[in-house]
Amino acid sequence: MAVRVAVIGAGVMGTDHARIIAGELPGAQLQVVCDAEEVKARIVADEFGAFGVGSDPIAVISRTDVDAAVIASPDDTHSTLAIAAIEAGKPVLCEKPLAPTAEECLRVIEAEKNCTRPIVQLGFMRRFDPSYSAMKAALDDGSIGSALMMHNFHRNVDSPGTWFTGDMAITNSASHEFDVARFVLGTEYTGISVWQPKRRDERTAPVMMVLETASGQLVNIEVNNNAAYGYDVRGELVGEQGSVFLTAPVHARYNLGLRSAEHYAPDWRPRFAEAYRLQNKAWIHSIETGAPSPIAANAWDGYQAAVVAEAGVQALNEGRRVAIEPREVPAFYRDLREAA
Amino acid sequence: MAVRVAVIGAGVMGTDHARIIAGELPGAQLQVVCDAEEVKARIVADEFGAFGVGSDPIAVISRTDVDAAVIASPDDTHSTLAIAAIEAGKPVLCEKPLAPTAEECLRVIEAEKNCTRPIVQLGFMRRFDPSYSAMKAALDDGSIGSALMMHNFHRNVDSPGTWFTGDMAITNSASHEFDVARFVLGTEYTGISVWQPKRRDERTAPVMMVLETASGQLVNIEVNNNAAYGYDVRGELVGEQGSVFLTAPVHARYNLGLRSAEHYAPDWRPRFAEAYRLQNKAWIHSIETGAPSPIAANAWDGYQAAVVAEAGVQALNEGRRVAIEPREVPAFYRDLREAA
Amino acid sequence: MAVRVAVIGAGVMGTDHARIIAGELPGAQLQVVCDAEEVKARIVADEFGAFGVGSDPIAVISRTDVDAAVIASPDDTHSTLAIAAIEAGKPVLCEKPLAPTAEECLRVIEAEKNCTRPIVQLGFMRRFDPSYSAMKAALDDGSIGSALMMHNFHRNVDSPGTWFTGDMAITNSASHEFDVARFVLGTEYTGISVWQPKRRDERTAPVMMVLETASGQLVNIEVNNNAAYGYDVRGELVGEQGSVFLTAPVHARYNLGLRSAEHYAPDWRPRFAEAYRLQNKAWIHSIETGAPSPIAANAWDGYQAAVVAEAGVQALNEGRRVAIEPREVPAFYRDLREAA
Amino acid sequence: MAVRVAVIGAGVMGTDHARIIAGELPGAQLQVVCDAEEVKARIVADEFGAFGVGSDPIAVISRTDVDAAVIASPDDTHSTLAIAAIEAGKPVLCEKPLAPTAEECLRVIEAEKNCTRPIVQLGFMRRFDPSYSAMKAALDDGSIGSALMMHNFHRNVDSPGTWFTGDMAITNSASHEFDVARFVLGTEYTGISVWQPKRRDERTAPVMMVLETASGQLVNIEVNNNAAYGYDVRGELVGEQGSVFLTAPVHARYNLGLRSAEHYAPDWRPRFAEAYRLQNKAWIHSIETGAPSPIAANAWDGYQAAVVAEAGVQALNEGRRVAIEPREVPAFYRDLREAA
Repeated sequence: MAVRVAVIGAGVMGTDHARIIAGELPGAQLQVVCDAEEVKARIVADEFGAFGVGSDPIAVISRTDVDAAVIASPDDTHSTLAIAAIEAGKPVLCEKPLAPTAEECLRVIEAEKNCTRPIVQLGFMRRFDPSYSAMKAALDDGSIGSALMMHNFHRNVDSPGTWFTGDMAITNSASHEFDVARFVLGTEYTGISVWQPKRRDERTAPVMMVLETASGQLVNIEVNNNAAYGYDVRGELVGEQGSVFLTAPVHARYNLGLRSAEHYAPDWRPRFAEAYRLQNKAWIHSIETGAPSPIAANAWDGYQAAVVAEAGVQALNEGRRVAIEPREVPAFYRDLREAA
Repeated sequence: MAVRVAVIGAGVMGTDHARIIAGELPGAQLQVVCDAEEVKARIVADEFGAFGVGSDPIAVISRTDVDAAVIASPDDTHSTLAIAAIEAGKPVLCEKPLAPTAEECLRVIEAEKNCTRPIVQLGFMRRFDPSYSAMKAALDDGSIGSALMMHNFHRNVDSPGTWFTGDMAITNSASHEFDVARFVLGTEYTGISVWQPKRRDERTAPVMMVLETASGQLVNIEVNNNAAYGYDVRGELVGEQGSVFLTAPVHARYNLGLRSAEHYAPDWRPRFAEAYRLQNKAWIHSIETGAPSPIAANAWDGYQAAVVAEAGVQALNEGRRVAIEPREVPAFYRDLREAA
Repeated sequence: MAVRVAVIGAGVMGTDHARIIAGELPGAQLQVVCDAEEVKARIVADEFGAFGVGSDPIAVISRTDVDAAVIASPDDTHSTLAIAAIEAGKPVLCEKPLAPTAEECLRVIEAEKNCTRPIVQLGFMRRFDPSYSAMKAALDDGSIGSALMMHNFHRNVDSPGTWFTGDMAITNSASHEFDVARFVLGTEYTGISVWQPKRRDERTAPVMMVLETASGQLVNIEVNNNAAYGYDVRGELVGEQGSVFLTAPVHARYNLGLRSAEHYAPDWRPRFAEAYRLQNKAWIHSIETGAPSPIAANAWDGYQAAVVAEAGVQALNEGRRVAIEPREVPAFYRDLREAA
Repeated sequence: MAVRVAVIGAGVMGTDHARIIAGELPGAQLQVVCDAEEVKARIVADEFGAFGVGSDPIAVISRTDVDAAVIASPDDTHSTLAIAAIEAGKPVLCEKPLAPTAEECLRVIEAEKNCTRPIVQLGFMRRFDPSYSAMKAALDDGSIGSALMMHNFHRNVDSPGTWFTGDMAITNSASHEFDVARFVLGTEYTGISVWQPKRRDERTAPVMMVLETASGQLVNIEVNNNAAYGYDVRGELVGEQGSVFLTAPVHARYNLGLRSAEHYAPDWRPRFAEAYRLQNKAWIHSIETGAPSPIAANAWDGYQAAVVAEAGVQALNEGRRVAIEPREVPAFYRDLREAA
């Protein structure tokens, strides 16, 4: 019996999730597409063959013909919908961020912590990306020795608008790096420092961050939302015996006009298509089995990313290193991970 | 309603098809696994959750709870099973070769040509590989100009045994190159010449082939079944204005021991995992819609590959160029392609 | 008439300079090799065909058959010998550092500033490396837009001994990066922050630095003297419209044992062989013409590198950002650069 | 005492040789530049500081202040000038080809074979290219096992004019590949087959060659004089245990406009700058020592290249494999090689 999934939000991310649920995942069925503008939901529902549409996400989550939901609505609705799902006992795959603030993340954790099974999987899909998996494997199998540093570069062609600020580069774009570096290294951050070079035009300048970890490692993150040349995510993990780079999947190299070139995509979808597919597959599998994915991020991971982002914003605005206090993992999440 | 698929043959290829059918394709259901040794079928059926097993492939194809079949049994059974499927009116995805000889391929074509819908899709999965797709797109969109030459390199770690001969390198391994170059270039071969260098050990030496096409292009194919260093398939399409290389998907690069290295897999599965998934997805889609994939190979393509292979074996054995006579495409296949 | 050159110091660097002077540069002649241990000087002199040897560097510089000298003796002798050369009016190519401290560098500058022609060229050879030249050209010709960030990675196989500290990584190894980033960007540093991750063994851990420039750019430098896997210098210059990477010259790629690998050298010589050759050629040319190289570093550049290094050591030891005060360029050096 | 060199021919190649002799080689001195048009000789002489000019090459070779000559005049003058140099007992570095026909090459060999020392070094500079050296080393040290195949690709942006034919692609461009493959493999050719695909425009189409060697290897050579996209020379040597690729020296990679690109040069000079420098250095060294370079090509090698080219032209024109008869090496050249 297929898991009947509602996709909440019919924007770029919601549309892609609908495509994956409907077309890539045996065991899942695209049941409902929901958007505040029902006409947008209808377009996506028709394209991918959903059975119904809706405009009230909480009502959709409650439908008896909906077993689980993907939350891909605006960021400020995530925690409310996640809590609604927790109350309805229906598993959700929630796009990042869990909530715009760490405090709001805590409310989801508070709601979830007495559940008998995990409800919220968070959409940090890079944990499923084969390149990060290979990087983590090279650390875990000892081949590069103990980890010393992780260098991360996150570049977009351009930021969505002039309202996109350096703060948002940290809270919005960098959260993937905060999470995946913490996942690969298996440790927590203890401090963060942030810089921003000057651009000559009106566009938001990149931010450069240096984070320290509880295990004595350094994590550097450049987030450059106006890199102009392409969507480009790079990373290197440096160990005591060697290092490993992420390499992006590329299908062809072109010899034309005095150049030998590989192409960048203009957005993230080709780069992380496989990661999204594997993430969503693991989510459906976790619903079928009742056991959380050992790889996937949960609400606690979402909270950690929010804590780091807030420290990063403070560091940028105050021009100084900001310490990040350790927080004890609630028993629910510790047990989850051990079970997984 | 899912397409209920029987997988015939529980060897390496059959097991991989069972995995894809059961775990990667919405719209498909792994109904039966069949193998002459039923105990092997049982192992695969259990691993991927098939509903039943069998040891008589024709009986399995005839089952009322089987809508379609993947033929992954020994090569010399392919045509008989394909004909059985044609007679039962059940679509099949047949692993290459369609048959060990061109003449036997013709029997399948004879059987199929009066069908009202296509029955046989042939497993030349490289047509679905994103790298070959990018190569073909660079030709079709005019960016590299008209095609002049296609260089192809096919290398395995080692051949399955000492019984593997140069003839088999042509009939068995090279058929993928014969088909995909013909597909990318959109033309037919008119002649073939073959050489074999000398190895110092007992292993089968590579074969090097030069084929001419009806459009005046050259296709070079090296098949090296004992390349030792890894599974490596490469290709370059040279046009009048530029060229395009296939690039294999790689996830990481390792800096260790005075080397910066990317890894080869020992066999074809990682290299063509996505191609198999997309091929099988297109097959299920063609069953659902009743329309053949515009990309997939059919029985006629299988026959063409066999004709070229036979000319290649003759060229190798006689040490001379062998001409390949043009053959008119039967109306059934011409119509199929136009419909697609 | 060839420039008759004395090479002071017959260690690794001195030997390499003797090789270049004797075998790669028309217009130069290896006249004398000098080392405190004359037997070592003799070995190098014999290998490359020098006319004489010596053990007293100041006496050698004063010889009437010596027109110019390469200073490749221990670091703490550099400034004394540079001053001796200034007093003798004989051009020197001085290996970096100009002196172990900024204050000592100032003594050379004080001595040189009343000369009628430049005497000291400093051995920051990366300014002549074709990769850095290409990077600088991509900035100067506008193709990548205004510079925002420069990322630098400097890795050695291992540090010379347990006495090699993080401080030395900054004062010794990083000086190349301090100079070349300043050269490429054409600006001065205003602040530096430094971190050091923890190694589990006794070896010196890498240092990670973030420098700010007067033009609002960021320069990141990793110096990893125990990177284990190879000598590896990498860099990326990120502009507002694109970025450019340094690529190291590589002559072959090897397919062996499930790996496709390029090789690292165990030390810096192959990577920067061409830079040293071009640097020394420019030096001989500047002696022939009496005009300084427009690219080469001078004593002032050596002083700037020492100032930054001292700020870096302070930043590491005090765990905080250290500001770097601007210093006015003495007229002598300003005129030199304008003349060049 | 420097070797006083005359450069015969002030075209592209002669100018480049004059630059190398005057500016890159200690031990050499650019004495005279000679060209049938003396005004052209004068321009080159002035640019690189030659002492004199001339327009009669044989007179120039005879000058008492000329110790040796570089022959870079039109192809059909090479053998006459080489013979004049042999008669004058003055070493020459002769640009390829030694002569336009194999028969004419034999006249040079006839003239040289009674010399007491070698006179003619032939300008097959790829033997000195670090990439081919690495390739040969990987064969000679056993790391890739015995050689099976060598794949060679030679591409120019465009051919010099419409008068450039497929025959000339073989006699002119391919001679570098004929020589260097023979050098790397250490064997002789026994047969050659040639094809030419059809271009749609008026430009000369590429030629594709398959050569067999006396040791049972295959050598494939594509010569594409109108490749449009850049000057690109590639090669792979396939052994029984692995393979090795040539990699061209590249200094930077550019991220711009949705592309990550390395640049091709429009002609051969950057690709083989180091090879020319090392070749000419070895030539000067051989004059100083009286011993031929163990790597350099001699007149016999030039004859072999001409023999293969003539067989290739015949194979192209007759559309069939042409056998290449073995020829015994004259004692003079056999002794030369053994001495070296």
